Amino acid sequence: MKFGVVIFPSKKLQDLANSFRKRYDPHYSLITPHLTLKNGFEANEEEVVNFADKLRQIAKNNNEFRLKTLKISSFQPVNNVIYFKVEPTKELNKLHNEINQEFSEQSLDYAFVPHITIGQKLSSDEHSDVYGSLRMKRFDHEETIDRFHLLYQLDNGSWTVYETFRLGKE
Amino acid sequence: MKFGVVIFPSKKLQDLANSFRKRYDPHYSLITPHLTLKNGFEANEEEVVNFADKLRQIAKNNNEFRLKTLKISSFQPVNNVIYFKVEPTKELNKLHNEINQEFSEQSLDYAFVPHITIGQKLSSDEHSDVYGSLRMKRFDHEETIDRFHLLYQLDNGSWTVYETFRLGKE
Repeated sequence: MKFGVVIFPSKKLQDLANSFRKRYDPHYSLITPHLTLKNGFEANEEEVVNFADKLRQIAKNNNEFRLKTLKISSFQPVNNVIYFKVEPTKELNKLHNEINQEFSEQSLDYAFVPHITIGQKLSSDEHSDVYGSLRMKRFDHEETIDRFHLLYQLDNGSWTVYETFRLGKE
Repeated sequence: MKFGVVIFPSKKLQDLANSFRKRYDPHYSLITPHLTLKNGFEANEEEVVNFADKLRQIAKNNNEFRLKTLKISSFQPVNNVIYFKVEPTKELNKLHNEINQEFSEQSLDYAFVPHITIGQKLSSDEHSDVYGSLRMKRFDHEETIDRFHLLYQLDNGSWTVYETFRLGKE
């Protein structure tokens, strides 16, 4: 089974993200808007019980934090993902590192760029059009993140929540 | 905001339900297969913090239980919802009642028929065809339920998990 770890932001930010995703993200109907803390990984149901225990411990040892978005950015030329750029903070980095370190066989071979995807798998022309029209706009938003979620993927590609972990709580 | 309380069954049962929902349920892409414990209700973000506290308490005071399905049934003539019939058990009834009693303004004016929807909003003819072809089949399945989830609905109709509650745990 494929698992992943994400933050679901507030309804307000999710609704805003969906207003773009509806047109620009083919994953629109598979998962609600999110910030990925750990990319999809294979695990069986026993392994994940153990992983969930560890995530519970990590959640307990981290505190809620502020999440800020300022603008829209793109991963071009690496890929054509367009996203709300989330301001990197010490708290978010720490949470991301602790979660990923729990899987020793997976090394962190990329820099963590916290983001909420609003468009992907666009053609080059579409990407240029969409990103060109959004890149100069400001998206000032700030909210408190007090939880994250462990998900698994169904055969049809959609994601179900396995468990929620509240930051700084038992 | 609209909230609801559900059980997501195992991946195995969800994948099976989706094999039908894909064709017969227009809510297929809005939420993964589930058993509803409390229908959608309006609450603001402060009220729901309080409600989540109560659900946490209810989860702690109830234990995990076995969920069994045997066959497919329909709510006809009330409506044309087709579903996996879930065997009513003392534990499931108790959990359902405790969750719904937390909203005193909402009386339980219907009997609780635990089910996992696999088809809805079908025409009469479609309903007859689909239900006719499935009603005699057996769907023997049994699993342990150890958690339930509080969800909220986004503007596009899709559902996001707010929190997971593990049965019999702190």
